[in-house]
Amino acid sequence: MKASQFLISTLKEAPADAEVASHRLMMRAGMIKKLGAGIYTYMPMGLRVIRKVEAIVREEMNRAGAVELTMPVVQPAELWQESGRFQAYGPELLRIKDRHERDFVVQPTSEEAITDIGRQELRSYRQLPKNLYQIQTKFRDERRPRFGLMRGREFVMKDAYSFDRDLEAAKRSYQQMGQAYRAIFDRFGLRYRAVAADSGAIGGDVSQEFQVIAATGEDAIVYCPDSEYAANMEKAEALAPAGPRAAAAQAMTRVPTPGKATCEDVAQLLGVALTTTVKSLVLATDQHDDRGNVVKTQVWLLLVRGDHGLNEIKAGKVPGLDGFRFATVPEIEAHFGTKPGYLGPIGLKQPVKIVADREVALMADWICGANEEDYHLTGVNWGRDLPEPDTVADLRNVVEGDLSPDGKGRLAIERGIEVGHIFVLGTKYSVPMNATFLDEDGKPKPFQMGCYGIGITRLPAAAIEQNNDERGIIWPDAIAPFTVVLCPIGMDRSADVKAAAEKLHDELAAAGIDVMLDDRGERPGAMFADWELIGVPHRVVISDRGLKEGQLEYQHRRDTAASKVAVGEVLDFLRGRLAA
Amino acid sequence: MKASQFLISTLKEAPADAEVASHRLMMRAGMIKKLGAGIYTYMPMGLRVIRKVEAIVREEMNRAGAVELTMPVVQPAELWQESGRFQAYGPELLRIKDRHERDFVVQPTSEEAITDIGRQELRSYRQLPKNLYQIQTKFRDERRPRFGLMRGREFVMKDAYSFDRDLEAAKRSYQQMGQAYRAIFDRFGLRYRAVAADSGAIGGDVSQEFQVIAATGEDAIVYCPDSEYAANMEKAEALAPAGPRAAAAQAMTRVPTPGKATCEDVAQLLGVALTTTVKSLVLATDQHDDRGNVVKTQVWLLLVRGDHGLNEIKAGKVPGLDGFRFATVPEIEAHFGTKPGYLGPIGLKQPVKIVADREVALMADWICGANEEDYHLTGVNWGRDLPEPDTVADLRNVVEGDLSPDGKGRLAIERGIEVGHIFVLGTKYSVPMNATFLDEDGKPKPFQMGCYGIGITRLPAAAIEQNNDERGIIWPDAIAPFTVVLCPIGMDRSADVKAAAEKLHDELAAAGIDVMLDDRGERPGAMFADWELIGVPHRVVISDRGLKEGQLEYQHRRDTAASKVAVGEVLDFLRGRLAA
Repeated sequence: MKASQFLISTLKEAPADAEVASHRLMMRAGMIKKLGAGIYTYMPMGLRVIRKVEAIVREEMNRAGAVELTMPVVQPAELWQESGRFQAYGPELLRIKDRHERDFVVQPTSEEAITDIGRQELRSYRQLPKNLYQIQTKFRDERRPRFGLMRGREFVMKDAYSFDRDLEAAKRSYQQMGQAYRAIFDRFGLRYRAVAADSGAIGGDVSQEFQVIAATGEDAIVYCPDSEYAANMEKAEALAPAGPRAAAAQAMTRVPTPGKATCEDVAQLLGVALTTTVKSLVLATDQHDDRGNVVKTQVWLLLVRGDHGLNEIKAGKVPGLDGFRFATVPEIEAHFGTKPGYLGPIGLKQPVKIVADREVALMADWICGANEEDYHLTGVNWGRDLPEPDTVADLRNVVEGDLSPDGKGRLAIERGIEVGHIFVLGTKYSVPMNATFLDEDGKPKPFQMGCYGIGITRLPAAAIEQNNDERGIIWPDAIAPFTVVLCPIGMDRSADVKAAAEKLHDELAAAGIDVMLDDRGERPGAMFADWELIGVPHRVVISDRGLKEGQLEYQHRRDTAASKVAVGEVLDFLRGRLAA
Repeated sequence: MKASQFLISTLKEAPADAEVASHRLMMRAGMIKKLGAGIYTYMPMGLRVIRKVEAIVREEMNRAGAVELTMPVVQPAELWQESGRFQAYGPELLRIKDRHERDFVVQPTSEEAITDIGRQELRSYRQLPKNLYQIQTKFRDERRPRFGLMRGREFVMKDAYSFDRDLEAAKRSYQQMGQAYRAIFDRFGLRYRAVAADSGAIGGDVSQEFQVIAATGEDAIVYCPDSEYAANMEKAEALAPAGPRAAAAQAMTRVPTPGKATCEDVAQLLGVALTTTVKSLVLATDQHDDRGNVVKTQVWLLLVRGDHGLNEIKAGKVPGLDGFRFATVPEIEAHFGTKPGYLGPIGLKQPVKIVADREVALMADWICGANEEDYHLTGVNWGRDLPEPDTVADLRNVVEGDLSPDGKGRLAIERGIEVGHIFVLGTKYSVPMNATFLDEDGKPKPFQMGCYGIGITRLPAAAIEQNNDERGIIWPDAIAPFTVVLCPIGMDRSADVKAAAEKLHDELAAAGIDVMLDDRGERPGAMFADWELIGVPHRVVISDRGLKEGQLEYQHRRDTAASKVAVGEVLDFLRGRLAA
């Protein structure tokens, strides 16, 4: 490809609304162009990256035996009413009425459409397992689209769906997709982690996220440097501390803590470690009648150590807490007799269920609110000052240095960007949509399904968050818009440079290398700056001076200096660099 | 590819709403699946065809120097308000409100979005010409979607847009696209015609349709078997007859024609040729004031020979008739004193402008309505019975046997399906959207644009309309879902057949041939019927009996019988057939 036949449109400045590096750099490198909030044109330079991502995903999906199809972008609402999602989905679901006032949606995912295809096409167990996927435009009407392709409204996703006879088979399909995903992410050339994620109602180890590591990532990833353990923050288990509870050493004491409504403030006031304090969180669960009216409310007190954070996913798994909400201030005052900030498990006005985090359950001589404004209790001890907790559970987010759940070391935490997610759906869609096949016994059974996504247009943004510097993007070879850029110096003045540059371009192209010849006639500084911004990993400079010595200059985007390569050896040299 | 790893879903019966062969066969062959009215999933078998069409289009567009990008499916209404199309477009434009009640559209084409990109990215004449294209999902909310992919609501189109300095350069870009289109359509392996189409306000020879020839096509294509002339019906010129007008031979006579309100009926009643009658068509043009109120209406009488049809595009080009409408019955009665069916140019109540078709202007002794119910006039002659017409123009559709406008023979007519269209847009979008570049003289000038479409998902349907028989589809090699199908007989019983089939599959695949091995274990009759329905052009049958003789059976989808090929020669044999 020659620059004169392409569309290169770099910008000096990123638009003011570009908050993160990938957004700024994709805009400045002319890879995307905003058409509306969260809606971008994939410009020629950006589209090349997206196409390379697509090609890798397609190859590996096909290799794993998945079959490609394309479902419509605009889908009739009827299917979404069958699954219940037309009602349940929030305003992120873009709803449309057509000319006949019939309801449609713009697909955010395609579970309903694929389940409809499955129930029509997959009639017999003999046709199973089957994995169908598409690489197609999606739309989610985000309330606050931002970060460019990272959280756009229109985006491209690869979404695959597996159909199986039973849950065991579905788990095998899931495992196969896990392998395919590792092959895909290995090929992207990015640092990533496959982390266990919460698998909701299915339970077990059947949900993984593929996270591209980046300091700017939205997600916290928990891993053990000494083992294979990796999970997202929602999922990562906090083990119970080793050893028994210490014996009580202090008497329980009511201490004034005027205006100190947080554990941090109380610990500071009393000159004690934050780890001696206990945080009180008040939840509620409602029972409904057939009409949906609340007929009974149970209030719960959850206790976690002052320096720990509540993990709401874990809280929702405590028996009885499924579907909880945070209690209202009137509910809190009715049960505790005071306002938030001074709450505790002792001296309640009305009974509440008490759930202690594993850590809290083993604490002695701890500090909590006195259920009286501006007072806390110190030296509190289970058994002596209050009954043992109704329930002990893992309620908290892990922190750096916690024991790894596999017992093989201590946990570390880093940031990631979720770019892939695989999970077993079970019968979540097949049962409400009555999607069944005839099993070997002649009886209809609902499909056990799985669902496997990759954010095709998000991946380039994640790659940039991981790989950039002050000069611009640094693409891994596999998804670079061009692998090699040829920068001739003074091509318009020197016939030698022009001839050498064009010859090399044709030679590399014929060898199957994705090469760009910058024949725009830009000055060297501007030309180099453009390609460093765009992030092409390999650069070859052709100049009269070099040619006189029979040499070209090679520099990798990460190199600090150029190295000389004999003209005749450039192809072999590059092949070596690309294979590396 | 092996059938067991694919999704084959042929149907015995097509759904009742499938009216045309391509719709029926694509449904029966499992290529598409209806999700809603005019909305289809491209099933794996159909998607393979679409991807091959896309690949050919992409290769030739790139070869022609066009650059690919992807514009959003969901587009903000603001741009469409700038161009005026948000108001002007009918209900075919699918309009959406997002969660913030802002207006959006689902793109039916992307002139606005590309013009917006052009005005931002193409600042200087040095960047011109530039041709940008996308292959992307479109939506048109057809009132009555039908014929499967032929007139769906959601579809995939390749749309390209050129930007040029001036109209001459735009015409060169248009010519280059014409060449690229011929290369593309040649590669599809279909019979097609590039026909001149009406170029609207631009004028000149700057609009062509690419029509796939098919007896079931919606469009009439006019061509000259003895020359290169080809045009669509709207555009094809009807030459004036050779020679002067004959002298009047009859006296004008008022004859009773009770209840005979059509030329056909009158000619039959009077026992004369239909070619001696003249049809009267009454049009009107309105003048509006600034508020859009009609302030003046001009009534026009258009005269075409009784056996000819009015061409409304041509009528609209008569000076003064731009934007005409058909006159209302009250308007007709006010000017002619009678109701439609007995109208004519003689004895008007109020003046009308008379436009005669070239043919009519040279007629003598003709028949027309007497402007009196149940009466016609015979023996009417220009100059003697009424003044010469105000205007003489080409008003009619050509008919088979008319002289070719290039003077090289006579016209023939066949049916076609429009699959491509190229035309010069001029400044239709650049002026209202203020899309300018700085020309060499330093002054801003609006782009001269061109627009080039190919119906990617319509092409397979057109290919089928052209190539099918009672057994199913017959694909050209270039766009077949698979080029070769291997049909082993008794693969599940015979280890020899299985080994030979799998070896051949691997051999052909390694040679880059797109081969399908049907390893489903179907009986020969059902297996052959499936692949004849699906339309794979080349079939190789592997059987025990054949293998004993060292032979396989080859049959092209159009062959009436199979021919034997030695096992060791199959690859070379197929290469020869595929090259042919």
